[in-house]
Amino acid sequence: MNLILLSADEIGDDMTVTLSDRRSRHILKVLQSRPGDRLKTGLINGPQGTGTVAKISSSTVVLTLELSAAQPEEPPFDLILALPRPIMLKRILFQASSLGIARIMLIRSRRVEKSFFDASLLAPAQYTPVLLEGMEQSCHTWLPQVSVFNRFLPFIEDFMEGYTAAGLRLLADPVAGRSLATLSVPADCQRMAIAIGPEGGWIDFERQAFLKQQFFPVSLGGTILRVETAIAVLLGQLMLLRQLSCS
Amino acid sequence: MNLILLSADEIGDDMTVTLSDRRSRHILKVLQSRPGDRLKTGLINGPQGTGTVAKISSSTVVLTLELSAAQPEEPPFDLILALPRPIMLKRILFQASSLGIARIMLIRSRRVEKSFFDASLLAPAQYTPVLLEGMEQSCHTWLPQVSVFNRFLPFIEDFMEGYTAAGLRLLADPVAGRSLATLSVPADCQRMAIAIGPEGGWIDFERQAFLKQQFFPVSLGGTILRVETAIAVLLGQLMLLRQLSCS
Repeated sequence: MNLILLSADEIGDDMTVTLSDRRSRHILKVLQSRPGDRLKTGLINGPQGTGTVAKISSSTVVLTLELSAAQPEEPPFDLILALPRPIMLKRILFQASSLGIARIMLIRSRRVEKSFFDASLLAPAQYTPVLLEGMEQSCHTWLPQVSVFNRFLPFIEDFMEGYTAAGLRLLADPVAGRSLATLSVPADCQRMAIAIGPEGGWIDFERQAFLKQQFFPVSLGGTILRVETAIAVLLGQLMLLRQLSCS
Repeated sequence: MNLILLSADEIGDDMTVTLSDRRSRHILKVLQSRPGDRLKTGLINGPQGTGTVAKISSSTVVLTLELSAAQPEEPPFDLILALPRPIMLKRILFQASSLGIARIMLIRSRRVEKSFFDASLLAPAQYTPVLLEGMEQSCHTWLPQVSVFNRFLPFIEDFMEGYTAAGLRLLADPVAGRSLATLSVPADCQRMAIAIGPEGGWIDFERQAFLKQQFFPVSLGGTILRVETAIAVLLGQLMLLRQLSCS
């Protein structure tokens, strides 16, 4: 926990917050903070700043907050992901949220077993804590918005038709894709969406459907990575491209 | 297993190889290959090509090989890694090998528990199969060379003094580092080494020791990633930088 995350409704009028859950346990047991210590603190979907330890007891911590006036910008990345098998899903959601993503769309694909959609982790009450942990790890305050599409066609036809958020759309495709180095990021540096397939890849029908929606196939030169690694590599590259082009 | 990996001593003079281990089981059970099927095949530290299924039995597969004449180039990346805790090590070695790395140096750091060096996975007979699986996943034939340094000073002083392989040396440092976008890759596109610290980060003494060895601190703008994610993000960015600069 490199950032103490708070929600707006926890904060009192006097800009203090009283914690008595895993956050106070972390502050007391792991950080072993004492009154006067200053901790990196952030508001979910809001600014970051400092929480100064005002009071501690055996299980409670009171922080006095000083938050930046600057609102964070929404991360410029949306992630479309063939729903991973339940055993992988938690780690992947943690990782995606730690990387700073605005929206995560978990979709059906031929090579995604239907039963994966029964995963208990797909309930907001289950996945939200995982996303928050990813943000606490990486010091982001942006809580990704998660949508689940258990059928491919309604996603690619109905939903994507109305999806205008991302001007630049990329399809991870180890077979037909080109390196991101060949991609010129549009000058206005608009939001990017990247779609990453299941283990085993997209089937041809799905690939064609993405192309019809103006997705541009990208790859790492014949390298086939596990989904988790592919997410980190491709998002890392997109972040770098933006920094190189939009400074 | 997206690539059937062979070692040179398995191949007969007639360019056939007989498999009767997990590779033949994969070919028979997962791929359900039949005689005549062509499989992507590669030689460890050697070229890739095609293995045509010549004969199958209930547990054996005979492949006839056609390998490219082109030797693969050694990957231009060396990874220096504060030894991860044993429970993470396997996944991290798999991932590193899937990304294409020439050399992996696992080192001690203050925030690495001494007991981590007792991990059975640090024996070559234990980690080599893990590295091979990473290569089979990603279709690389380069087997990373692993070295283990259970003391920091002998590594940074003695070993690094004689280490001239990497002209460009980077130190992942979420606190003091600058974005890779600010880095100009040397025109001769030499080998790169990147050092990634333990959970909790390098201590200041270690950071200074790396700087003395001409390591350049890089970061992802205040984002603190888990080691596994940091490896993939940073290597992804280095690959892209090379593609952009060394084409």
